[in-house]
Amino acid sequence: MKKRTEKVGFQGEKGAFSQQAIRQLLGDRPQAIPFTRFDEVFRSLAEKTVDAAVIPIENTLHGSVHENYDHLLEFELPIVGETSVRIIHNLIAPPGTSFRQVRRVFSHPVALNQCLDFFSRNPQVERVPFYDTAGSVKMIVEEGLTDSAAIASSLSAEIYGARILRRSIEDDRQNFTRFFLLRSPEARGRKAPEGVKEWKTSLVFTTRNVAGALFRALAVFALRDVSLTKIESRPLRGKPWEYLFYVDLLGHLEEPRIQNSLGHLREVADFLRVLGSYPRGDRQIH
Amino acid sequence: MKKRTEKVGFQGEKGAFSQQAIRQLLGDRPQAIPFTRFDEVFRSLAEKTVDAAVIPIENTLHGSVHENYDHLLEFELPIVGETSVRIIHNLIAPPGTSFRQVRRVFSHPVALNQCLDFFSRNPQVERVPFYDTAGSVKMIVEEGLTDSAAIASSLSAEIYGARILRRSIEDDRQNFTRFFLLRSPEARGRKAPEGVKEWKTSLVFTTRNVAGALFRALAVFALRDVSLTKIESRPLRGKPWEYLFYVDLLGHLEEPRIQNSLGHLREVADFLRVLGSYPRGDRQIH
Repeated sequence: MKKRTEKVGFQGEKGAFSQQAIRQLLGDRPQAIPFTRFDEVFRSLAEKTVDAAVIPIENTLHGSVHENYDHLLEFELPIVGETSVRIIHNLIAPPGTSFRQVRRVFSHPVALNQCLDFFSRNPQVERVPFYDTAGSVKMIVEEGLTDSAAIASSLSAEIYGARILRRSIEDDRQNFTRFFLLRSPEARGRKAPEGVKEWKTSLVFTTRNVAGALFRALAVFALRDVSLTKIESRPLRGKPWEYLFYVDLLGHLEEPRIQNSLGHLREVADFLRVLGSYPRGDRQIH
Repeated sequence: MKKRTEKVGFQGEKGAFSQQAIRQLLGDRPQAIPFTRFDEVFRSLAEKTVDAAVIPIENTLHGSVHENYDHLLEFELPIVGETSVRIIHNLIAPPGTSFRQVRRVFSHPVALNQCLDFFSRNPQVERVPFYDTAGSVKMIVEEGLTDSAAIASSLSAEIYGARILRRSIEDDRQNFTRFFLLRSPEARGRKAPEGVKEWKTSLVFTTRNVAGALFRALAVFALRDVSLTKIESRPLRGKPWEYLFYVDLLGHLEEPRIQNSLGHLREVADFLRVLGSYPRGDRQIH
């Protein structure tokens, strides 16, 4: 019996780095479904229009995607996987366009700003800000522009039938984006993948607004030798200058050490929610 | 002898909430100098084109202004004051325009989204996204639009000679932005203001990348009953998945308790820099 093709939502145009993350997490078989906004990705999974969703959560140059932290709390969709994608920017042109013809380069302003060395070595080309990296490849191919190129992922060249003129023109190679794979809450019951060496667990909590509260919250992990890999604070709506803390730690929710830590955290936290346990994937392509 | 008028840099158009923060911090006498980008504000203070700068650092609905955390580290301009401004959105029109005439409302998309109740009660008006709140008041007055209003601060109505048609139309009154007052490094030698009841100190540090490192860093404060009011993490460039931590605490750098905490923090941190001690100002208008 042939399995139904899985649908996986992501934000951006086809060829976005999020689609690269889908490939790393789930291979080539799922159908990647693009959405314009992040909240639409979450909503489509909550309403089961898609089977899974892949969202960026942090970048090593720019920091966290804070909007998605807020959506994780609101939509209660469990995290079941993570991966990290190295952000490699390529100069991409419609077929037939040579590097010498290129006078304008379209891309998202952030991507343009991550290729400053390329632009200073090539003063003949003009930078043109566009709403999306992969979207700029789509546009120059569809419009058949003969003097233009775009800066985007190699996947977007493949998808829109364009050609890579220069590979890896980004200034900083230490540019990674970490993505979460989300499924609907029923997926918590799925069989855990086998052979996983290391697990991570993400959670969110608030502390009482007293001196030393965060210290006591972190003590529940330190006292049990549980390593934290990330802590992020977000404002607590309706309580000015109070915060939600998002923590990633090494370990699986079902380990006694983690269970004990969370039991202890419940004593000192006003609110606690586990966002999911998933195989560690943040270092796989370093 | 008449004192020279101080120049204070801020980001945005005249009438921005940052200019309101300048008034709260320094009164009406300084000249507020607008800049388009945050890095220009920092640079102008570093190059002494202005005498001081006021920058937003966090908002109670949207979280930290992360770009400014990065600039604080880069430019090394000491924080000498803070204040918090309640974000009150007003419906503002050119003189002579009545509420019944208004068919379009211009403002920054974030401000439009913070007045959804107003728009659902007034379906006859169309929302038009614009690049800036105060800038939208400037535009409708300069263009003499008779069917349009803008959403912005009361200060912007005053500055551009417009009229407030509806006051405080924001959905959420727990919407505050906290601002820092920065001066050039020589200002550290200025006499401290008198009669200050409570001081805050801001600092930034990195920890060694070992288990429990952040816990040990926070212990230096908890063990001395030093209260933290904020912790924020930012990515460390060139070291994927490692972080800088920005901390605000209650106390002055010159108190022995704080000196001891920082001495202890130097033992466990790879890097530590104090960003400044300043009179506490985040609760003054609650």
